[in-house]
Amino acid sequence: MSSALVLSIDAMGGDDAPEIVVDGVAHFLKGRKRAVRFLLHGDELQIAPLLARHEGLAEVCDIRHSDSEVDMSAKPSEAVRRARGSSMWNAVRSVKDGEAQVAISAGNTGALMAISKVILRMKKGVHRPAIAASWPAPTGFSTVLDVGANVDCSPSQLVEFAVLGEAFHRAVHGEKAPTVGLLNVGQEELKGGQTIRDADALIREADLDLDYQGFIEGDDISAGTTNVVVTDGFTGNVALKTAEGTARLVGGWLREALTSSLIAKIATGLLSLGALNQLRAKMDPRNVNGGVFLGLNGVVVKSHGGTDALGFSTSLRIALEMADSRFLSEIERNLERLSALQADTVSEGETA
Amino acid sequence: MSSALVLSIDAMGGDDAPEIVVDGVAHFLKGRKRAVRFLLHGDELQIAPLLARHEGLAEVCDIRHSDSEVDMSAKPSEAVRRARGSSMWNAVRSVKDGEAQVAISAGNTGALMAISKVILRMKKGVHRPAIAASWPAPTGFSTVLDVGANVDCSPSQLVEFAVLGEAFHRAVHGEKAPTVGLLNVGQEELKGGQTIRDADALIREADLDLDYQGFIEGDDISAGTTNVVVTDGFTGNVALKTAEGTARLVGGWLREALTSSLIAKIATGLLSLGALNQLRAKMDPRNVNGGVFLGLNGVVVKSHGGTDALGFSTSLRIALEMADSRFLSEIERNLERLSALQADTVSEGETA
Repeated sequence: MSSALVLSIDAMGGDDAPEIVVDGVAHFLKGRKRAVRFLLHGDELQIAPLLARHEGLAEVCDIRHSDSEVDMSAKPSEAVRRARGSSMWNAVRSVKDGEAQVAISAGNTGALMAISKVILRMKKGVHRPAIAASWPAPTGFSTVLDVGANVDCSPSQLVEFAVLGEAFHRAVHGEKAPTVGLLNVGQEELKGGQTIRDADALIREADLDLDYQGFIEGDDISAGTTNVVVTDGFTGNVALKTAEGTARLVGGWLREALTSSLIAKIATGLLSLGALNQLRAKMDPRNVNGGVFLGLNGVVVKSHGGTDALGFSTSLRIALEMADSRFLSEIERNLERLSALQADTVSEGETA
Repeated sequence: MSSALVLSIDAMGGDDAPEIVVDGVAHFLKGRKRAVRFLLHGDELQIAPLLARHEGLAEVCDIRHSDSEVDMSAKPSEAVRRARGSSMWNAVRSVKDGEAQVAISAGNTGALMAISKVILRMKKGVHRPAIAASWPAPTGFSTVLDVGANVDCSPSQLVEFAVLGEAFHRAVHGEKAPTVGLLNVGQEELKGGQTIRDADALIREADLDLDYQGFIEGDDISAGTTNVVVTDGFTGNVALKTAEGTARLVGGWLREALTSSLIAKIATGLLSLGALNQLRAKMDPRNVNGGVFLGLNGVVVKSHGGTDALGFSTSLRIALEMADSRFLSEIERNLERLSALQADTVSEGETA
């Protein structure tokens, strides 16, 4: 019991909370042998009857009552001011207090990021946290960051993301020496603006012990050309949602193709038994739902606000992988090098 | 004969030119009744024997010999200096001289853009041309621009793209009143930087007679939420290539699923007869290959450099659609409004 991992959940975050959250926990537990416990932060009156619907679920969950919750549409600055004591605040607080290894919320992204920064604080050497997404690739997953925390990024922030993303990929996806690429556009003459060129130069100059491969393009993400894809939060967010939209469109076409005629229906009937279900699962964005906040003294996972129980259970799986991983220790080595680099840059600046 | 449309082709542009270019023309002509003629600019000694491989092809093609071609990797500024008399230069020149309605090249994008600007010049009211892509959506196509001509875009350039894209969509995709959206990221608090907010305000304030719907997100592109998607060339290029990469990944999974077992193979055999081939065609990026340069006094279509004959024939189809369309006249109305807006902005600036 003492070795059980504990996940701290904002049970009130998300469009259909707390119902899909509790159902998500139940779905996550199906067939799982490993001991995991859950802290469910939120309105006890709503949560308790939902737990009772699933046999045995109440036994692995502790409800932590909170009177308030963060508004899905609140601005982060406002949200933080009013957040103390809310289900989201308390969920992150449990990680800070050492009661849980990871916090998970499907609530307001900006508020969750702001609250996480206030409570957990940034790791030394990191100026801005990033959100990392695990992206399907032919052989496993690519790690893409930032997918939405920072709209504008300086070159040195992009370098920090490279360090964070490399450690994340090593810890979570088990690659010993992940390759890192910087997202850019096509031909030489159309190469990205000064920020990206500066970031490229900075990573190359720094002795970061990273397998940095230089510029990559949008189609390299799904091709898995590099394990880690570094970009600003605007581009990363657009890319992630574009890929989700494409997968959804193609999924619709596939359904159409498979039900377009009697012969197609018979054929599909044969296929459904096997590989087609796997394909459907691979194409389902709910199976990669969960952005991990990197750069904080503690791990926070953000689920899509509009997800369902299956999607929320994926976030819990990702949270568990993070809790199980050595991410927080993996990252220390690189951050030390980064700090040294930053100190160098400052002293160079002073002497120049 | 006098009513035949004429397409002017840079036969030497692209990785596998002139072979795939000539094969692409032949593929394009299969089963087509409409009279179309082609000017093939390039090395006559290479092109003539390729034409001879396809029955009747030489009759609809005029070879225009040129001694030089633009290097695929040359910087645009260099390329323009050396380009005079090259196959690419002459292909665009034929449009300027009224010999052809549209120029097509699979060569160096930056060079083609630079040469097109020099020869055709920008339309009045347009400061920077954009590249528009037609993007598969559930009901037809969305138009996305810019997908690679301008890495950094000012708010007023984004407004110009809205005007150009709306006229393009109306002319080419036949929508009477296309809706227009501005690509941005998720939640309110993470909304894009100042440039995008300013562009949003500028489009709203301007009396452009556009059905502007405000901000949209990456997944709205494939969903067809708006007909036209406006973004800067960096984000647009990343989004386009990300979607292509995703389609390719899913295509690979699909092939795997359909050949994973004997039952799957039998089922696939039944399916292949019908809808599955349509699905494959829809997912094939070669079937949407062709970026259209907008904002110039004349139409230029850019094919992927690495495409094959099928992909090049798609560019020719897009070129023909442009030639057939009333794009150049459709755009005049909006450009007049835009010029008026710009005049207002300038005079406001002067009095401020």
